Amino acid sequence: MGKGRVALVAAGITKFGKRAATFRDLIAEAGKATFDSNKKISPKDVKAFIISTVYPERSAYQGHPAPLAAEWCGVRPTEFHERVENQCGSGTSAIRTAYAAIMAGLTDLVMVIGAEKVMVPSHQEIFLNAMGGGDREWESCFGVTPPPLFAMVAQAHMQKYGTTEEQLAMVSVKNHNHSLKNPHAHHQKGATLEQVMTSRMIASPLKLFDCSTNTDGAAGVIVASEERARALTDNPVYILGTAQVSDAYPWANYPKDWSSWPALKFAGEKAYKMAGIGPKDVDIADTHDCFTISEIIEYEELGFCKKGEGGKFIEEGRVDYGGEVVWAPSGGLIACGHPFGATGIRQGYEAFIQLRGEAGDRQVEGAEIFLGHNLSGLGEHHILIYGRN
Amino acid sequence: MGKGRVALVAAGITKFGKRAATFRDLIAEAGKATFDSNKKISPKDVKAFIISTVYPERSAYQGHPAPLAAEWCGVRPTEFHERVENQCGSGTSAIRTAYAAIMAGLTDLVMVIGAEKVMVPSHQEIFLNAMGGGDREWESCFGVTPPPLFAMVAQAHMQKYGTTEEQLAMVSVKNHNHSLKNPHAHHQKGATLEQVMTSRMIASPLKLFDCSTNTDGAAGVIVASEERARALTDNPVYILGTAQVSDAYPWANYPKDWSSWPALKFAGEKAYKMAGIGPKDVDIADTHDCFTISEIIEYEELGFCKKGEGGKFIEEGRVDYGGEVVWAPSGGLIACGHPFGATGIRQGYEAFIQLRGEAGDRQVEGAEIFLGHNLSGLGEHHILIYGRN
Repeated sequence: MGKGRVALVAAGITKFGKRAATFRDLIAEAGKATFDSNKKISPKDVKAFIISTVYPERSAYQGHPAPLAAEWCGVRPTEFHERVENQCGSGTSAIRTAYAAIMAGLTDLVMVIGAEKVMVPSHQEIFLNAMGGGDREWESCFGVTPPPLFAMVAQAHMQKYGTTEEQLAMVSVKNHNHSLKNPHAHHQKGATLEQVMTSRMIASPLKLFDCSTNTDGAAGVIVASEERARALTDNPVYILGTAQVSDAYPWANYPKDWSSWPALKFAGEKAYKMAGIGPKDVDIADTHDCFTISEIIEYEELGFCKKGEGGKFIEEGRVDYGGEVVWAPSGGLIACGHPFGATGIRQGYEAFIQLRGEAGDRQVEGAEIFLGHNLSGLGEHHILIYGRN
Repeated sequence: MGKGRVALVAAGITKFGKRAATFRDLIAEAGKATFDSNKKISPKDVKAFIISTVYPERSAYQGHPAPLAAEWCGVRPTEFHERVENQCGSGTSAIRTAYAAIMAGLTDLVMVIGAEKVMVPSHQEIFLNAMGGGDREWESCFGVTPPPLFAMVAQAHMQKYGTTEEQLAMVSVKNHNHSLKNPHAHHQKGATLEQVMTSRMIASPLKLFDCSTNTDGAAGVIVASEERARALTDNPVYILGTAQVSDAYPWANYPKDWSSWPALKFAGEKAYKMAGIGPKDVDIADTHDCFTISEIIEYEELGFCKKGEGGKFIEEGRVDYGGEVVWAPSGGLIACGHPFGATGIRQGYEAFIQLRGEAGDRQVEGAEIFLGHNLSGLGEHHILIYGRN
């Protein structure tokens, strides 16, 4: 390990939603919001730049997004620039990559922008793009998309542990209600249990409201060495721990029991160890609720409750304001929306505002530890743990 | 800077050319060749994995290539995996990213695979994919592709410095003749000055043989911490220096004189300083000869001759076997071929075999320092300097 630590010193975000903005408009908007969050940093101070984006080649017909994004943020990177991609986990990967570059001494300050233009005019195209992350020759070519795969996960969990459709729905109700207090969220109408339970069936038992939302959006953070961070802000938000574990790519190669995610358990243990904390120390968790069942399994594998008791854990109100941990205060992927490459950066933004006490109506009082998590398959998990000191 | 140094401990490559192999076939072939180069390393020893690839989303209809590639190399990454993209500079970026992860203490061993499936059935599709890296809204949409842009670079250089078409052609003759001794090269027929000078005009003054070759191909390296490297091989090849500088993205924003590449000069100076060497210490240079004019400008900006004298430098035979430095012993992008994301890794492979004295018929005797370079635009330069100790 190199010297010192690494911290977030700025963060910004765009409105998520079905935006008229183009890919580069979203980047510029997130870049401006990020610089606006810390007036001590101007574009000319940034010499290292990473973009996290999944498929601009398909949705915006634009390749080589790293220098384009730097240009549209006003940055000329003389230390390095690159694009990091890891499907839905791209954002967390990108922040980890910035962390590594700083710890390695290649730079002491990196801007990381996550951006995705998802909402193209053709619904079929959105569908095909989303399928691109699966194994084309063995799985995607048969029409497999995330909803039926995660429906099988939900069925396995319900069968093995007795998890109910109502418990799944409670995750959606919580996250939709959280998004009422997030002006950047795609959905801002809240939801009732009845609404979720009676929404259109997508892939049994997952209904429309059990699914995360395709959305356009972008977010940015600026990451710095501890020394640089102290000069730039009185309230740096430190990266305390990180881990990334993969155990299988095509779903067919995944271990037989889809309701257990051992790679997530292992990643959590590694990240906690690096941070020197345990789940009880976490005040806010912002994990990959691509579907309601995912969040329930994440409670379990990350050690917040016993395996199989995730459904009961939400039912007992333990993951909301007033509970043991506030889960997805922004509304998460379900209600804030999921612009693939931007999601991990959106979590970094949420860590930044929550741990600095700047989260307004959705502030979690006294929050000191924030756990961010992305998955990019049942067996691929990416974690960052942020802390106030 | 963290502790210790970083070294290549294994390297492998596929045949470059118009291959029947698919994207994943190429990956598996490069992975096997890489493991075959060091029998002390097996796939289960690899816990960190990077793929460098530019547009599998377009040419292979396959997104999220990192875990797929790991799977096809037999690797389960429990430390991290990611895809790094920087258009034609992706390979050098990916090895730099592996270097940073090791120096940061996130791992002590990373496999880096570069792969690109370029030769798809439709010529129009190859053309459209290649345009994807330009600025779509401001440049690519008007049909701008690399050959006319680099033709303008050549015209500027000829006008300002008196560089001749014959001097440009000499770069191609040299590189095509080098590829005669490289069994992995796309072209293995050599070339005469007459052949190059009479080849079909593409964009004046650049003729067919002045251009690099679209090709399918893949290559791999394994990068390790110094301690791990010493346990795995008696002949590690160290990364002595690296730099990456960008100064403009759309060509229209590039400084007025296209025949000067100050970002390359700056990158070279930074990399030399980090390595503690100068151009006179370089035995082999393997730079981005996407067009013959590029290699000539690279002689100049990297400090091997005075600005404007690159044409004379090749004409005097100073960049070939028996000269001051051997430039592009593999045949370079022109004759070995340019599978975008694989090119920087192919350079790493060449450094590995040359500096270990394992390059067979094309061995540069006594080579100790190898300079690798990619560009991804006139103003974007990526450098790695390798050394035997």
